[in-house]
Amino acid sequence: MIEIGIVGGSGYTGSELLRLLCFHPEVEVKTVTSRKHEGKEIWKLHSFLKGFYNLKFVNPELKYFDGCKAVFLAVPHGEAMKFAPKFLEVGIKVIDISADYRLDKETYEEVYQKEHIGFDIDAKPVYGLTELYREELRKAELVANPGCYPTGTILAAAPLAAEELIEKVIFDSKSGISGAGASVSEFTHYPNLHEAIVPYKVTNHRHYWEMVQELGKLQGEVKVSFTPQVFPGSRGILTNAHIFLRGELEEKEIREIYEKFYSGCYFIRFQETIRLSYVRGSNFCDIAIFPGEDRIVVSSAIDNLVKGASGQAIQNMNVMFGLDEARGLDFPPLFP
Amino acid sequence: MIEIGIVGGSGYTGSELLRLLCFHPEVEVKTVTSRKHEGKEIWKLHSFLKGFYNLKFVNPELKYFDGCKAVFLAVPHGEAMKFAPKFLEVGIKVIDISADYRLDKETYEEVYQKEHIGFDIDAKPVYGLTELYREELRKAELVANPGCYPTGTILAAAPLAAEELIEKVIFDSKSGISGAGASVSEFTHYPNLHEAIVPYKVTNHRHYWEMVQELGKLQGEVKVSFTPQVFPGSRGILTNAHIFLRGELEEKEIREIYEKFYSGCYFIRFQETIRLSYVRGSNFCDIAIFPGEDRIVVSSAIDNLVKGASGQAIQNMNVMFGLDEARGLDFPPLFP
Amino acid sequence: MIEIGIVGGSGYTGSELLRLLCFHPEVEVKTVTSRKHEGKEIWKLHSFLKGFYNLKFVNPELKYFDGCKAVFLAVPHGEAMKFAPKFLEVGIKVIDISADYRLDKETYEEVYQKEHIGFDIDAKPVYGLTELYREELRKAELVANPGCYPTGTILAAAPLAAEELIEKVIFDSKSGISGAGASVSEFTHYPNLHEAIVPYKVTNHRHYWEMVQELGKLQGEVKVSFTPQVFPGSRGILTNAHIFLRGELEEKEIREIYEKFYSGCYFIRFQETIRLSYVRGSNFCDIAIFPGEDRIVVSSAIDNLVKGASGQAIQNMNVMFGLDEARGLDFPPLFP
Amino acid sequence: MIEIGIVGGSGYTGSELLRLLCFHPEVEVKTVTSRKHEGKEIWKLHSFLKGFYNLKFVNPELKYFDGCKAVFLAVPHGEAMKFAPKFLEVGIKVIDISADYRLDKETYEEVYQKEHIGFDIDAKPVYGLTELYREELRKAELVANPGCYPTGTILAAAPLAAEELIEKVIFDSKSGISGAGASVSEFTHYPNLHEAIVPYKVTNHRHYWEMVQELGKLQGEVKVSFTPQVFPGSRGILTNAHIFLRGELEEKEIREIYEKFYSGCYFIRFQETIRLSYVRGSNFCDIAIFPGEDRIVVSSAIDNLVKGASGQAIQNMNVMFGLDEARGLDFPPLFP
Repeated sequence: MIEIGIVGGSGYTGSELLRLLCFHPEVEVKTVTSRKHEGKEIWKLHSFLKGFYNLKFVNPELKYFDGCKAVFLAVPHGEAMKFAPKFLEVGIKVIDISADYRLDKETYEEVYQKEHIGFDIDAKPVYGLTELYREELRKAELVANPGCYPTGTILAAAPLAAEELIEKVIFDSKSGISGAGASVSEFTHYPNLHEAIVPYKVTNHRHYWEMVQELGKLQGEVKVSFTPQVFPGSRGILTNAHIFLRGELEEKEIREIYEKFYSGCYFIRFQETIRLSYVRGSNFCDIAIFPGEDRIVVSSAIDNLVKGASGQAIQNMNVMFGLDEARGLDFPPLFP
Repeated sequence: MIEIGIVGGSGYTGSELLRLLCFHPEVEVKTVTSRKHEGKEIWKLHSFLKGFYNLKFVNPELKYFDGCKAVFLAVPHGEAMKFAPKFLEVGIKVIDISADYRLDKETYEEVYQKEHIGFDIDAKPVYGLTELYREELRKAELVANPGCYPTGTILAAAPLAAEELIEKVIFDSKSGISGAGASVSEFTHYPNLHEAIVPYKVTNHRHYWEMVQELGKLQGEVKVSFTPQVFPGSRGILTNAHIFLRGELEEKEIREIYEKFYSGCYFIRFQETIRLSYVRGSNFCDIAIFPGEDRIVVSSAIDNLVKGASGQAIQNMNVMFGLDEARGLDFPPLFP
Repeated sequence: MIEIGIVGGSGYTGSELLRLLCFHPEVEVKTVTSRKHEGKEIWKLHSFLKGFYNLKFVNPELKYFDGCKAVFLAVPHGEAMKFAPKFLEVGIKVIDISADYRLDKETYEEVYQKEHIGFDIDAKPVYGLTELYREELRKAELVANPGCYPTGTILAAAPLAAEELIEKVIFDSKSGISGAGASVSEFTHYPNLHEAIVPYKVTNHRHYWEMVQELGKLQGEVKVSFTPQVFPGSRGILTNAHIFLRGELEEKEIREIYEKFYSGCYFIRFQETIRLSYVRGSNFCDIAIFPGEDRIVVSSAIDNLVKGASGQAIQNMNVMFGLDEARGLDFPPLFP
Repeated sequence: MIEIGIVGGSGYTGSELLRLLCFHPEVEVKTVTSRKHEGKEIWKLHSFLKGFYNLKFVNPELKYFDGCKAVFLAVPHGEAMKFAPKFLEVGIKVIDISADYRLDKETYEEVYQKEHIGFDIDAKPVYGLTELYREELRKAELVANPGCYPTGTILAAAPLAAEELIEKVIFDSKSGISGAGASVSEFTHYPNLHEAIVPYKVTNHRHYWEMVQELGKLQGEVKVSFTPQVFPGSRGILTNAHIFLRGELEEKEIREIYEKFYSGCYFIRFQETIRLSYVRGSNFCDIAIFPGEDRIVVSSAIDNLVKGASGQAIQNMNVMFGLDEARGLDFPPLFP
């Protein structure tokens, strides 16, 4: 059994880790922290988990992680950088679900407008898009779990970027409201979202920089545009990648590029039609390819809380510990 | 490994069996039938299951069930009665998810306006509300899996009925649209249900007779009223049982009656607040008790496709085969 | 033109008054108050109204209501009682959408746990369920607009109560989330309500007392039970009134009682099937009658913000000023 | 009073015409046809309109249109071309909501794979995007009402096209399910759409050709890409126009181009945030402009059944008859 801890157990990525780890035969959750709910039993906050955990929330102090082999950081950006070095120092591997280690220090500080105080470490953060960095993840001490949007967008375009075939890509993404987190706000007030698609941070969402960074690593410079919006549902991100290609390719060639690139990837599935309900609750990323005369559209569907956050974090943990990457995650989606 | 077959794999109870059995470590699905889709690979119809089954749909012929220990009948009522005797004859246990064996012959024929041609059998059908008939189920050859509404309503009232305490009970239930099945209709046309609660068969739904039968077995005669409706969601049945009691009881006494009645029942959970999202995708039945001056309200929440259909069918199968009743079903709900 | 003012223009009942009064050919909105948004243009808060009003929010001071013939109080209970006496004193008629004048002083103070400081007035509040109090409303100076739930429930049962035919009635109501108001909360957080029916204040909602009071006036004592819940939609209240009758009545007799009682009532429509989408955005109350063996079910559907609040307030204003009660409200619902 | 007729009154564009014309002070609906529902009272099919029309559906025969000045064709494409010439011949103006007269004969026959038998007429069809063709519409005898998607997309890009500033535009549109019509199908089955965004005809939707035609008229050749999808709601189309510009423009210049182009257009509103609920039920097209480094995004929101179909048809009728184009349509949206 691999004992693990969770820092930040009150939000959606925290409760999703707790949900998913119930399926994992080789992991035991030892510690879950929450400053706000210290001393409260986990299931009293997360009623849907009643019967699954006997733990109480504790304060995020190092002593509670004794014996843990890994820790998941499910705290807001800016907070994770305070915890990561401490855990690394005592030999506990860190999977950070926040944004703190996804970009280089300089870019991070500009994009997030915040000084990064957590880069004084030996470990080199590995960007945890498992399908791209599986090898690096095997030896990683610190994993920067990707953002939800970057997961869906990068996976939709990576195979073509790896072949240096992208002239320009426009990502138009629609996310379920759980992506906004468990905290209440005007934005998440039910009547404001009923029967509504709401674009927000239309040309300046911070996740953009992960896409530029990662597709750039594959192809050199790539022209990327990104627009996020929310749709009236709880889970899921549907991305349309409108891709303009360098040169002409037959549909068959394009499909081969994708299939080869994702060969052996359990969680990538090619579908003819694409629906968020086909991946709901699961770690799959469904991909559909629609060739057109002017451009191709590659649509990807993920569950933002699973493949877009906590599920991929567990997938990364599996790789880090030499397990099959699908261990404990190989269950089907919830449809309808 | 227990090999099983599914008769009727194209509808929602069929696909839900397929989904749920992926979690079951001791069951192997050997055969799935569909006349309409004969020869088609399962995942080509149920795209969300891509990667989970290599089977093709076959015609419902006995030869395909060779070696099966049990069969699930996920066909419409009127069809199940044709299959059950054949399987029983060759020693295959039958779990019938249709309505065909839930009522006695006479009542069935009046309520369903159809001759029952499948009662010429040795096996005595056991009503598969597991929490009520666990003992009988251990030896059952033929299980009549309860209707979705009866599961939620009977579980909400049974403890008081067993104490002969119910003066009158009014069940007001709201079901997700998946309860209407996978076939398209005016009723299930999206715009007809958007932002709508639609009462239907308001005073004459056929599931009423299961409630009368089962609560009657517990208490003798019980005055039961039942009104179903659909709400704009896919899964779940929320029932308010408005119960008028014989005599006065303290809240504490009522709670004790419920807790005692469901003692040791893994899938019954008592909650302070009740939400369909707390049971979504799972086999739990959440129950909340709200005492009032004039009457008490007991609210129950189930996933209509799991505890209300295919999940309970598997729970029954577990009991029939001497397994822990939660085997393969002991995973958490999907929230949010 | 009748000049009117609105106290409390930032919430949903306020913005709904503004929406509805755009349709009214004989009313001019002169003043809209909001302490919080003082000085802001109305459409900057209520973007959907862009182009319809040039007014700015002002503080709720009497001077801004100079020339107004009537004022709508769209403020929380406890606040309205501070304003009503001041307006009445200067001869401005008051339509109070809050709960402050719906119950007698004693009951109010017990139910709302608050001292009532606004009953030192000459005007006698008239309960503004227009269909019941049309005559009294003609001369009213102060109208207590009914709660949203009481509107739907009382209208469903009143005809039978007027004939003293009700043995017992159980109201099971489902409301859209806009009923919770424009303020954000855990309760209205989108992911908490997605695919959820949530019962709340199951046996102790304050609107209960309006039902007891009004049905009691019609029949003497009536046994009333009431359970509210929210469904995943923005607008609408669907009520099932489960009614147990004194004595037996033919379906035909029941229908005649209803049709006679509501004879000439423009906003009452009898329907065979009932859907919230058939009344959405309109002032109609649709009613469907379902006779059963043990009891009858009368279902009513209203838009909680229109007939359940601001629309009925305007209907009452029409009556108070000698206009046709449907003036400015005689437009069709929004379906689908 | 202008007497009008409606050919095809059973679908959503038909019932929406009936809804909207209730608001119109100068129009009287004389005739509504439906072969399927001949002889049935209108409100028996469209229950939400109970109380608003006394008409019965009739067969589509010319005699029933005696006295009509105009007729709306709310029938499928392929049908309208059979009716239009007959009405034109007897001097009845035609507003065709189908696709039959939107494209030239040759393009139509290729795109819709159908011979066009209705072009042997004197009248020249005018493309009824009111904001672009107001002058031509004043004298039009035959109006080709635009598709729902083309309305939202063309309005989002037209001002820049008119200045020949578009290098490339990618339209990513999300429509409510009412866009699929009132007929039931797998596609519109509720559980298939719950919590789902479904791209369809991703690179080959027929509405594409209207965009190419109309933007082409403004700018010469324009590179257009278009991807439609449905979201889980009933009404509305949200379009993101991702526009790559020729040359660089300041944000201020862009805004001026839009404001000048739509100067005096009652139904175009510029908003800072955009939500379908801000236009629901109304004829408005809300537009928001989001400048970015690489491209600009112009988002437009319409109600697909109003500005995207029946509302714009009435707007066009107003212009054809010399009325204010907002006559009978100048009411606010339904929010929340």
